[in-house]
Amino acid sequence: MGERVRIALDAMGSDLGLDATVGGAAQLSLEDADIDVFLVGDQEAIGAALGRFQHDPARLVVVHAPDTIGQDEDPRRVPHRPDASIVRAASLVRDGEADALVTAGNTGAMIMAASCAFPRIKGIRRCALAAVFPTARRHGPKGDPFGLMLDVGATVGATAEDLLGFAAMGAAYSSVVSEIASPRLALLSNGTEPHKGTPAIREAHARLAESSFAFEGNIEGLDLPKGTVDVVICDGFLGNVVLKMLEGVGEIAKELARKAGERSLQWRIGLGMLDTALEELFRRTDYKTYGGAPLLGFEAVIIKAHGRSEARAMRNALKLGAKNVRGRLLERIREGANSLALESSDE
Amino acid sequence: MGERVRIALDAMGSDLGLDATVGGAAQLSLEDADIDVFLVGDQEAIGAALGRFQHDPARLVVVHAPDTIGQDEDPRRVPHRPDASIVRAASLVRDGEADALVTAGNTGAMIMAASCAFPRIKGIRRCALAAVFPTARRHGPKGDPFGLMLDVGATVGATAEDLLGFAAMGAAYSSVVSEIASPRLALLSNGTEPHKGTPAIREAHARLAESSFAFEGNIEGLDLPKGTVDVVICDGFLGNVVLKMLEGVGEIAKELARKAGERSLQWRIGLGMLDTALEELFRRTDYKTYGGAPLLGFEAVIIKAHGRSEARAMRNALKLGAKNVRGRLLERIREGANSLALESSDE
Repeated sequence: MGERVRIALDAMGSDLGLDATVGGAAQLSLEDADIDVFLVGDQEAIGAALGRFQHDPARLVVVHAPDTIGQDEDPRRVPHRPDASIVRAASLVRDGEADALVTAGNTGAMIMAASCAFPRIKGIRRCALAAVFPTARRHGPKGDPFGLMLDVGATVGATAEDLLGFAAMGAAYSSVVSEIASPRLALLSNGTEPHKGTPAIREAHARLAESSFAFEGNIEGLDLPKGTVDVVICDGFLGNVVLKMLEGVGEIAKELARKAGERSLQWRIGLGMLDTALEELFRRTDYKTYGGAPLLGFEAVIIKAHGRSEARAMRNALKLGAKNVRGRLLERIREGANSLALESSDE
Repeated sequence: MGERVRIALDAMGSDLGLDATVGGAAQLSLEDADIDVFLVGDQEAIGAALGRFQHDPARLVVVHAPDTIGQDEDPRRVPHRPDASIVRAASLVRDGEADALVTAGNTGAMIMAASCAFPRIKGIRRCALAAVFPTARRHGPKGDPFGLMLDVGATVGATAEDLLGFAAMGAAYSSVVSEIASPRLALLSNGTEPHKGTPAIREAHARLAESSFAFEGNIEGLDLPKGTVDVVICDGFLGNVVLKMLEGVGEIAKELARKAGERSLQWRIGLGMLDTALEELFRRTDYKTYGGAPLLGFEAVIIKAHGRSEARAMRNALKLGAKNVRGRLLERIREGANSLALESSDE
């Protein structure tokens, strides 16, 4: 399958319990002999879960962590919880025993554990969560029906420097995951003209226009569902609102199709097909299925799976982690950040 | 039909020419004997257009304005163009000869003409463009399938005071147009908790929570297509991105339905029906059809129709203007602004 990769999986983080996390790792162990997974969490519970799934024991290693941080716990307690599964899993990566970290747990706790374990990549001032979203246009040689957007985290406000960092990270991630040599980037703004947007957007625009990135300028809201570019750059507040709105549109579309289907046979026939098409579109990008959203900016490959990811999605998240290790994500981010820093140094 | 209302229509502003503007006014003249329309623009061209449409000459008055400001002209030239149709139309309202202003022309020129002609409503620091958008939930006693969002203008950034002004204006407009006694308001943010969002959003949240408005707190992107509340408050940058994104989703949905319909008879049957449903949903809120977006904050009722509005939509825009005059929009905004100012004065 490829270069050997070792992944530290927070086995305790899922809202669906160990059947999702351990189940996903068990599936993968039978499919890819070149990925080893550390199952980090309560040894006994993990052992019991493993008993329920066919798996290749040579690919799975249980690492005991007696403590778990719940989805609703305050992330600030992380530094005082060295025995928590997310903290132990991060330590495995920090100590070079694993190459990537995957969790479906508390996002704040993940960010805090990462902050404690890993340095920031040089030139990146602020980390970002990136997410894929469905688009009409397809992207890259594999024809991916989704674009990438970042930051979609909870970070309110972003300086021009932050946006440039997001650009470097988004380009790197898109080049690995969608296999696009030079992903087309744009800033999300309220108009395509260079003078549109906040001062941070205008400054980032000017600097990206002079960079070596395939920068397409500003895009508007209209361009998001069209999928005009491969990577959409925005601050975490806007990204959060926009991403959740797209989720909402997907839910409504499915609901409309379901309700209409109750009315008549003809509706059912037509909408059954539409439903399948919608399902496919949204399933491919729904991160309950897709695998996960990368947390970018730290010197580590980190994948955040959805709390309600089922075993199949957890398997996908583990594969996504391996793909980013093999694709040299961190090196690509460093190169991108470096190229921007060089270009901005003669100011 | 109701109280007599006189509307000043910028007859020259439409991208579709005088057939749209004069045609719309001609339609309305046959339907509502209580609305008089001033057709402001080139007398000869208006006369020729009137010749092409059945109309009631008692309801229509031509007011000559020899100059026209094009869609792409710089709005800053407005003060030097006293003979422009938009400027003359605004003057009719300022001088008390007309009760409302309707235009399908250059948005910037409209705002500039309004700034020159009308004072700001007391307590309102910044004007806003409001727009309706399609929602799954229905609103008010008429079951309107749309919510209201403001600001959707090009204004980047908004202070807490600005957001409070938008709340007062949105509540007033919704109460007139959707006939909701106490419209439910929310701030668009990146989380429902009161501490989520920018400092301006957090401050506005605290003050609206203590106001007499039906304030529901923060909503997230997910709630927009659902239509959780009647009026969504945000700054013009976010509103612009979000509104255009919804337009884009509508376009894509129609495009998908059209393409799928080419494939097979069953698809065509099912999707033909879906297409009708989508058409209905988006047509009701598409402001090419809906009538227009109000420009709020000035001491005047001002409706901005879409540049590509056809005659039917121009008729709707004129009716919307009359409805806001009869519903005492300005008084309601003054009351709302006043109630907020009182509540904020003991800070």
